Amino acid sequence: MLGVTILGNNSAVPAFERHPTSQVLATSSRSFLIDCGEGTQIQLIRYKIRRSRISHIFISHLHGDHYFGLVGLLNSFALLGRQQELHVVAPPALQEVLELQFKLADTRMPYPLHFHAIQAPGHLMTIDDMEIRCFRTDHRIECFGFVFKEQKKPRRINAEAVQAHRVHYSAFENLRQGNDYTAPDGTVIKNEQLTEAAPKGKTYAFCADTRYDESIIPAIQGADMIYHEATYLDNFAAQAHLRFHSTSKEAARIAQKAQVKKLLIGHFSSRYDVLDAFETEAREVFPNTDLALEGVCYRIP
Amino acid sequence: MLGVTILGNNSAVPAFERHPTSQVLATSSRSFLIDCGEGTQIQLIRYKIRRSRISHIFISHLHGDHYFGLVGLLNSFALLGRQQELHVVAPPALQEVLELQFKLADTRMPYPLHFHAIQAPGHLMTIDDMEIRCFRTDHRIECFGFVFKEQKKPRRINAEAVQAHRVHYSAFENLRQGNDYTAPDGTVIKNEQLTEAAPKGKTYAFCADTRYDESIIPAIQGADMIYHEATYLDNFAAQAHLRFHSTSKEAARIAQKAQVKKLLIGHFSSRYDVLDAFETEAREVFPNTDLALEGVCYRIP
Repeated sequence: MLGVTILGNNSAVPAFERHPTSQVLATSSRSFLIDCGEGTQIQLIRYKIRRSRISHIFISHLHGDHYFGLVGLLNSFALLGRQQELHVVAPPALQEVLELQFKLADTRMPYPLHFHAIQAPGHLMTIDDMEIRCFRTDHRIECFGFVFKEQKKPRRINAEAVQAHRVHYSAFENLRQGNDYTAPDGTVIKNEQLTEAAPKGKTYAFCADTRYDESIIPAIQGADMIYHEATYLDNFAAQAHLRFHSTSKEAARIAQKAQVKKLLIGHFSSRYDVLDAFETEAREVFPNTDLALEGVCYRIP
Repeated sequence: MLGVTILGNNSAVPAFERHPTSQVLATSSRSFLIDCGEGTQIQLIRYKIRRSRISHIFISHLHGDHYFGLVGLLNSFALLGRQQELHVVAPPALQEVLELQFKLADTRMPYPLHFHAIQAPGHLMTIDDMEIRCFRTDHRIECFGFVFKEQKKPRRINAEAVQAHRVHYSAFENLRQGNDYTAPDGTVIKNEQLTEAAPKGKTYAFCADTRYDESIIPAIQGADMIYHEATYLDNFAAQAHLRFHSTSKEAARIAQKAQVKKLLIGHFSSRYDVLDAFETEAREVFPNTDLALEGVCYRIP
């Protein structure tokens, strides 16, 4: 079961008690932190997110509202005596920022910190059964979105069927991989008779900061849930384009064209106190849209 | 009238809804921000501190809990279109940290940002009628405290006395400077007969992070109010020393020996949820002690 908890849903400048971008994608065994705006470590405490579950942090780009909270979080992990390793996946230049600040504070790192510089779109890494890829978005500086895709799971052994056919358990792994079974007497039994398909893996995509850009669609096509920024309402479409951001309707249009199942919108401009119109405008285009609200965990359907 | 509003009173790791170090010293005409831990810009909004009043930011040292909020604040000032100049007074290496992050984000600064590197203890600058000096404290890395001292104000003209002696207003400036008055007929009237002393200038000292260190006393001697860190309670004195921090009682002892009028204590360790004992222990040594509580403005007596 995958779920995304929103820690910050505001654009560049904090306002109306809304915080800059950060969210946690939790799998059954660990958590991924996606972007880390200022105050993320305080939001983690506020919403009781287990920090020890976080094994990887993904940073989309180097605008401050997406990473100014990172050095503080890493520093607090050190002060709290964290020992388990931590991976940061980010644009290459972030390493220099972190190392400079650690050096100046004479920081002693009690845990191994691995920095993975994002070099190009495509495959980033596979963790447990999750493949993580990145794709470019159309922003003022280099910016990447991330796709988290649970890989195809092995088929499940049908306990009654294997008993009925007296299949020895040494053959189970072969069955899980989808192969047919050959009995000692030479009879071949079709895999489908002995196994069941595993539940389909889920896909979540974080589309970072971006203008309306259809070129991201192949990367997120058919995802179970995507997060797409919606900095402005429709009447600010020109401004959105100029500032390399999207409107709520544009986010919905991307969701619709990519045929995803569910859309979360966030990164709201601080010009808006009340957010209802974001939901209304997006739902006109793509009904299964939710506002990304701070502290709320959105299950991936 | 001087007042200090506390924005953060916790030590290194945020806890119990307490934030890292930051405070605002407000004069009648402007505000000085002293240290700028992560989340300071959010605290400024929460406590309705007018950001446009802030003309100078002083950073005591380069441990993250004293400056990780600075780049975000400067960035937000830029995004909000600030135009008035801003001064940052800090250890030299901070300039590199800021410039690197501005470069990576391709930040356009709409306001002049002046960086003043602290080179040595002593006079830093005079702003309006306030002299600002710094002094070294005993911390793990180089660290400075700051003294804000209102300079001696000119004497005030006694309206009734000048009328009685028929003193022409062209002589007032001379009187304000403390000189005697010579009437057209040659009579000399003592300054004290025509003027009154101005109210004494106030002094506030921020003692940053420090071990118990009597060598700071000359710098803060007789101040109207000082802020001194009190990371631990008395039974953790050994630990405090080891970690270059102070206990509540040590802070009080410094206040007592320096014969200041009032003591504020803060920078509480995240091992403490309830803070009452800090007040109790300090007051045993120096009765006029207050806990530095977030969102509270402490007038300088």
